[in-house]
Amino acid sequence: MKFLGLLFAADACASVSDLLAPRQDLGAIGEATCTEIGKNLAIENVTVNIAEYLPAGSNITLSQDYNLPTCGYKFVVNPVDMCRLAMRVETSNQSEITLEAWLPTNWTGRFLSTGNGGLSGCIQYPELAYTVGLGFATVGGNNGHNGTSGQAFYNNLDIVHDFADRSIHTGVVVGKEITAQYYGCPHKKSYFVGCSTGGRQVFKAVQSYPEDFDGVVAGAPAFSFIALLAWSGHFYPIFGDPGNSKYVPAATWTAIHEEVLKQCDGIDGVVDGILEDPSLCNFRPEAMLCSGDNTNSTTCLTPDQAGAVREAYSDYYGADGKLIYPKIQPGGEQVAARMMYTNGPFPYTSDWYKYVVYKLSFNSSPGNPDWDPKTFSIADYAAAFAQNPFNIDTWDGDLSAFQNRGGKVLSYHGEQDGIISSLNSPRYYNHVSRTMGKTSDELDDFYRLFRVGGMGHCYGGDGTSFLGQQGSSFAGDLDPQNNVVMRIVDWIENGNAPETITGKKYVNGVVAQGVELVRNHCKYPLRNVCIDPANYTKAEAWACIV
Amino acid sequence: MKFLGLLFAADACASVSDLLAPRQDLGAIGEATCTEIGKNLAIENVTVNIAEYLPAGSNITLSQDYNLPTCGYKFVVNPVDMCRLAMRVETSNQSEITLEAWLPTNWTGRFLSTGNGGLSGCIQYPELAYTVGLGFATVGGNNGHNGTSGQAFYNNLDIVHDFADRSIHTGVVVGKEITAQYYGCPHKKSYFVGCSTGGRQVFKAVQSYPEDFDGVVAGAPAFSFIALLAWSGHFYPIFGDPGNSKYVPAATWTAIHEEVLKQCDGIDGVVDGILEDPSLCNFRPEAMLCSGDNTNSTTCLTPDQAGAVREAYSDYYGADGKLIYPKIQPGGEQVAARMMYTNGPFPYTSDWYKYVVYKLSFNSSPGNPDWDPKTFSIADYAAAFAQNPFNIDTWDGDLSAFQNRGGKVLSYHGEQDGIISSLNSPRYYNHVSRTMGKTSDELDDFYRLFRVGGMGHCYGGDGTSFLGQQGSSFAGDLDPQNNVVMRIVDWIENGNAPETITGKKYVNGVVAQGVELVRNHCKYPLRNVCIDPANYTKAEAWACIV
Repeated sequence: MKFLGLLFAADACASVSDLLAPRQDLGAIGEATCTEIGKNLAIENVTVNIAEYLPAGSNITLSQDYNLPTCGYKFVVNPVDMCRLAMRVETSNQSEITLEAWLPTNWTGRFLSTGNGGLSGCIQYPELAYTVGLGFATVGGNNGHNGTSGQAFYNNLDIVHDFADRSIHTGVVVGKEITAQYYGCPHKKSYFVGCSTGGRQVFKAVQSYPEDFDGVVAGAPAFSFIALLAWSGHFYPIFGDPGNSKYVPAATWTAIHEEVLKQCDGIDGVVDGILEDPSLCNFRPEAMLCSGDNTNSTTCLTPDQAGAVREAYSDYYGADGKLIYPKIQPGGEQVAARMMYTNGPFPYTSDWYKYVVYKLSFNSSPGNPDWDPKTFSIADYAAAFAQNPFNIDTWDGDLSAFQNRGGKVLSYHGEQDGIISSLNSPRYYNHVSRTMGKTSDELDDFYRLFRVGGMGHCYGGDGTSFLGQQGSSFAGDLDPQNNVVMRIVDWIENGNAPETITGKKYVNGVVAQGVELVRNHCKYPLRNVCIDPANYTKAEAWACIV
Repeated sequence: MKFLGLLFAADACASVSDLLAPRQDLGAIGEATCTEIGKNLAIENVTVNIAEYLPAGSNITLSQDYNLPTCGYKFVVNPVDMCRLAMRVETSNQSEITLEAWLPTNWTGRFLSTGNGGLSGCIQYPELAYTVGLGFATVGGNNGHNGTSGQAFYNNLDIVHDFADRSIHTGVVVGKEITAQYYGCPHKKSYFVGCSTGGRQVFKAVQSYPEDFDGVVAGAPAFSFIALLAWSGHFYPIFGDPGNSKYVPAATWTAIHEEVLKQCDGIDGVVDGILEDPSLCNFRPEAMLCSGDNTNSTTCLTPDQAGAVREAYSDYYGADGKLIYPKIQPGGEQVAARMMYTNGPFPYTSDWYKYVVYKLSFNSSPGNPDWDPKTFSIADYAAAFAQNPFNIDTWDGDLSAFQNRGGKVLSYHGEQDGIISSLNSPRYYNHVSRTMGKTSDELDDFYRLFRVGGMGHCYGGDGTSFLGQQGSSFAGDLDPQNNVVMRIVDWIENGNAPETITGKKYVNGVVAQGVELVRNHCKYPLRNVCIDPANYTKAEAWACIV
């Protein structure tokens, strides 16, 4: 295993240490400093509500005191000694963010921002714990409102603004200042690790706040955000509710997944339950039409259902004949079914149209009180895209400012993602390529995308999805080859750019039961093929090819 | 080599013979009968202009006498003794077709119709010669007008009607009657072999005139005709003319073809210059962006050009968000470039919109005199589709009437087709599958589609394109496995349905130079993969897999 070297050994801030080095003498850094900064922090618009020094292993009980967004988290354990600050930061006269800064005593000199998910509204406490444990001074905010609903956006564009980009940027500005004050010297390198909405936030920073970060890890980005929400919402009018002739129940989606594997699992060279490159899978739902041989309604499809399934796997185009959002890839259908196909309207879409696009209150005024997600259409998308508040769409293709200041982007997307189409990441990559006029070889300098076969949305799935991309996908492996957070550090600080990223899958998903599969994930546009099917569980059995 | 048995050995019409059997004593069939039928044929609306008995090897000089559409053909040689009839057949008070019936002395009892191409207007004399040589009583018509232009459609819907379906159907009705009168007994089985527009005509008959034919061979069908013409015309607004920033010259398309092969040739298991299944090729034009390493404007693309190329390889969607026509497949780009990308507006599209949709005369009245193919848009398509005269779109999915009378469809489409997207044939197949509620196993009873890797539009290309599908792709091989015309006969008359169809490629395209490649083409939805790359030139090195 390879460890990253000490960052600031001979630095003026010599007390900061590498996360893996023995604890240094930290002098004043400790409980007194934490209490002190809690009392006397003087940053405009910032009110510190909590300042507590916590020894490693503390059980931090989360409550809604001070407007903290618990989002179902009841407690979190900090893995290292640290100072915890929880703050209120006003962002306008009608908006504010709740921000936490976790400052490890054994600091590496690195600053890191965590991101958010969905439409929330939730500080990602597990990611604060994960990254503070790696020695980062870490911040996490609530993205301008609490909870997972978009209701807060109703008639308050400032909260939309926080959600679009102001919460993250504010957290970075405040967090960096706090870091400098607490440690007595500024951070040396700044990182952002996010997935889903966090991935969008990463790219928003890269596009619009290129000075905020040096290295970023963007997972399954929710960029082309307006398009994504339209796409997520367009499935409900396709399938409808139980009883509709096109409705396909969850059990049938399990059969569809089996049929996807039957048709496409071997394309990557081995039948292992994982589609390494589902973009090569032209799934044919017609193969499942009910016939004399198969009349079981949970394993066969009526013609209406087959047509709906085909539509669900098709690209989504707008009234101007332009692509809105690419099709979902085969493989993640069981998750997609639960999220978007079988359980009524997709809530984030409904919220966005109710509370932002058409501004419907619960009392149905103002706006269009009759708006019904069942009628969602490309005309609704057009209305939403015309708004694109604060350029939340996050689709700018010129990343030269970020590149020019030495920034690096490590992006990844699970090919079994059932929530955000994994085709949208290559689409953006190619958009950047054309916008900047740079080939892959040239983009490699600062932007690399990895397609993670068999990974679901940000984590999980049937493949080798432990990449260290978040706390729940970290099994203690700090080798940059196996850990994308350590990899972005290694790229920024040592120039070790990733050629592949290696993922692991554990038996039954349980780390203690041992490694089941190891696989390298290829840098786009390369694709992963099995060259030694007999040994497909080993990384060496695979190759990245043009 | 396998030969088809005698069809009517013990039949009342015993004088008819198998094409390969020794010539029988034909009694009255011969010059006198030919002259007689020319003089005395009494079929309503039919006027015989030429009736001549021609011994095998006659050099038939084609002239425009009697309104015969020469279409560039100067002469044609009949390979067998036959009676040639050329007729005028009125189809309305403002339309007529020119029809030829070629009646072989050594008749097999089989009737066959040839088809047409593009917007013409041309009797396919080489196909008459090919099929009469196989012993069919063969007809070919001019599709209601002469030449390759659509100008005849202007203000004459009867000519559009002939083009949509009436010419073929009329030729069949008249041709079958002539056949019966000439031979003194009716035909036993009826066939249709066509490609491109001929393929559309085949499916029009299957959909709307199910009694006309027993067995049909439909190559590269121009069905979803309105959509096809829109698609063909939508490239001009993408690329424009030389000087436009998005224009991509022909030389660059050669480089694009090389890049397509670089990215995708190996997907089928062997690098041989042929994409067996280009639907697995997600071509990335961004790989060709001009960069420091490559600034040669004939081998690299500007960002504008790369965007245009990507658009050209994308599905084509309408204002209602529904697919109009599927993307072109990578592989046939050099032909597509010549036909649709580099030489101004696609003439068939322009003609259809000028003379049918907007009815522009040469004097620009009536209609919209300012209509410019450079402005072609999905709104134009919507106007055209609303008309769909005589249901020329040819997209009905219920083929049960044809199936129920025992009809069989053998369809094929070259995967290197640069004029009609080879994805549209599977699309129709799946449309039929859903409409009829039949799986592939069930459709196999009467409808089989073969994807011919490396074949261009109807013939040619880099692959094994000699299938006996037309005279120019026939090298004397009558084995039904190697000849789709003989295969449809074998399927209809002996029940020998095709599992694969075998194609051959000749050295330098010259039969006399010998066979270069032999390859079986798979029945959709199976795909062709090379399982023995060292022997890829042999059929045995390939397998059809799910």
